[in-house]
Amino acid sequence: MRGFAARASLEQVWAWIDARVSALGDESVGVFEAVGRFAAGDVVAERDLPPADRIALDGFAVRAADTVGASDYNPLPLGLSGAPLAVSVGDAPPPGTDAVVAVDQTRSVGGMMELVAAVAEGEGVERRGDDIEAGTIVVAKGRGVRVADAALLAVLCVGSVSVTRRPVVRVLPVRDEVAAGGDVDGPALAGLITRDGGIADPRPALADDVAALAETLGEGGADLILVTGGSGLGATDHSAEALALAGALEIHGVAMRPADSVALGQVGGTPVMILPGAPARALAAYEMVAGRAVRRLAGGSAGLPFPRREAVTARKIVSPGGWSDFCRVRLREDGRVEPIGSGGLASLSSLTRADGFVLVPADSEGYPAGVPVTVHLFDLAAG
Amino acid sequence: MRGFAARASLEQVWAWIDARVSALGDESVGVFEAVGRFAAGDVVAERDLPPADRIALDGFAVRAADTVGASDYNPLPLGLSGAPLAVSVGDAPPPGTDAVVAVDQTRSVGGMMELVAAVAEGEGVERRGDDIEAGTIVVAKGRGVRVADAALLAVLCVGSVSVTRRPVVRVLPVRDEVAAGGDVDGPALAGLITRDGGIADPRPALADDVAALAETLGEGGADLILVTGGSGLGATDHSAEALALAGALEIHGVAMRPADSVALGQVGGTPVMILPGAPARALAAYEMVAGRAVRRLAGGSAGLPFPRREAVTARKIVSPGGWSDFCRVRLREDGRVEPIGSGGLASLSSLTRADGFVLVPADSEGYPAGVPVTVHLFDLAAG
Repeated sequence: MRGFAARASLEQVWAWIDARVSALGDESVGVFEAVGRFAAGDVVAERDLPPADRIALDGFAVRAADTVGASDYNPLPLGLSGAPLAVSVGDAPPPGTDAVVAVDQTRSVGGMMELVAAVAEGEGVERRGDDIEAGTIVVAKGRGVRVADAALLAVLCVGSVSVTRRPVVRVLPVRDEVAAGGDVDGPALAGLITRDGGIADPRPALADDVAALAETLGEGGADLILVTGGSGLGATDHSAEALALAGALEIHGVAMRPADSVALGQVGGTPVMILPGAPARALAAYEMVAGRAVRRLAGGSAGLPFPRREAVTARKIVSPGGWSDFCRVRLREDGRVEPIGSGGLASLSSLTRADGFVLVPADSEGYPAGVPVTVHLFDLAAG
Repeated sequence: MRGFAARASLEQVWAWIDARVSALGDESVGVFEAVGRFAAGDVVAERDLPPADRIALDGFAVRAADTVGASDYNPLPLGLSGAPLAVSVGDAPPPGTDAVVAVDQTRSVGGMMELVAAVAEGEGVERRGDDIEAGTIVVAKGRGVRVADAALLAVLCVGSVSVTRRPVVRVLPVRDEVAAGGDVDGPALAGLITRDGGIADPRPALADDVAALAETLGEGGADLILVTGGSGLGATDHSAEALALAGALEIHGVAMRPADSVALGQVGGTPVMILPGAPARALAAYEMVAGRAVRRLAGGSAGLPFPRREAVTARKIVSPGGWSDFCRVRLREDGRVEPIGSGGLASLSSLTRADGFVLVPADSEGYPAGVPVTVHLFDLAAG
């Protein structure tokens, strides 16, 4: 048993990831399949939208000049020659018309339609290219494609989009941390990998054997390998040793709680990260470290994927100086946050009871009560 | 061509949904399959966690009483009988020990391990039930199950969870609004339905024929039917008529922009909503109206699913009084918001250029520059 001679800072780990991991190559997918993926290049409109002038309002087509002076007290006949020209959204403007009046700008008197308001030229009519002109970038490189983007591309007759390939992230649990519950890390990390745009490839738990693990690490086909368990320095911890044997162990020990035994390296150019096996620590280590690599490989933004909110501390948040701290917090009904559990002892229940977390940087010893902090919220709409 | 005699308010439409639509029945799924679903009942821990006392820190097991007075100046022998008892996270505490010292609370002198700090009883040791006691509710009814919840349930040996069944939401486009781009509403709404916990069942576009649409509306197998297109009052709009023929048309015309032609009713007890066919209007109508029904059926929270943020208006937001308004806004670099496009003319490009939207209620005519408003953000981590 030995201690970590020196621990890397969380910032050093992020810099390691950013230096070694970037967006994978691209693939072409249908525009609606692209939703949630990241554009591998700018997508440019090849035509105008609308492609021709069109009606934008249900009502009656008119020539604006004919409506001048129309009012309740001075109703005018509706239509070019007295016959109302009913139009619907999307119609081509009838020849000779240049505006649309809404139904409530008209009235019916003895079966005759009358106009009781004036409209300006162009009202209720969309001109060719009003919405998008050919040549405009409609989806910029790196953008997470949204449903509305896909709809716009479809309307512009774009059939497929080039998006960054989804990374295959292999999860290798090296021992059954919680035998009774089966493998917890594999399916749990799979959920987070999927969230971050990866394809999870969870494998059955391995025995904690150096040679067998080293061999498994050398199998190809993954863009990132996450090992869970055996990350520490105890007598039964062999994961870092296996990584060193199979490739290179570059960082072991990170000054962060509750997952200081994280290790990073590579085998044949494939980045490998070893996370603690205890599920709460594995999940925290994923959020603090591994998720960044998954999101970068997928072409997304490296930062944490949670909605953030500023909130004032209801109680002090204590953190040891020199350590980056993943502090679970609860949002109280008065909108203030309070810490849950202690930073060092990671329990799953503290994670499930938390509404989010505060990342306390290493150069801070926490926060007193009554100051604003940035909370990363687990749920989307916790407004 | 006629106008809507009276338009329902958006609040009346929400009340209509809340009165007619509630969570479907439940089904049992594996704990990790439950992630993103909503618990149909409270899930109670049937055992303690940890199930027995266990080590929570890599280090050396000690009897706390033996460490009293240990310091750099007064090192003490390590272990019960001088032999260091190395322990790893998850181990059972060796008999006779009641605390763990970390490696950096020790030093090695001439091959002998010494203790240089005192520890309190229980330090580094988790007691049975410390985390969760049997009988505790670990996932409350209605909660959106998170990855950490599933991990906790797995550790507690809970194999499956009862969650609300996912609603089948049929999408019936009644005409091809944008012929050149193919059916846009079907796949676009499918993306939003999936996001809200539903199973999208998009059907091929139908011709705008009253009898055929009425017959299709009568087919069973859906928990909610969304018709897109033909929603208005124009000569070629027949969807509301078909709904009246097949079942009951209960609301037609809603005082909201940009989708005032929305209609609601039911066929054989299945709620039916008719949305405008133009994609930007269909998407806005989904967010303002239909999504609420999908989320309620799935057992989730009825409210809008976007992260919310308070932001100050950079320019005034104009909205007609008497109308609920879906105002697309952009977040500027200075953190202020400004409106994009006009409220009435809904374009897809305004939706794609927007970072989110402000819902201006009917009793407001908008907001001047310089006041705080609530923005619903399309992206998760727009912090």
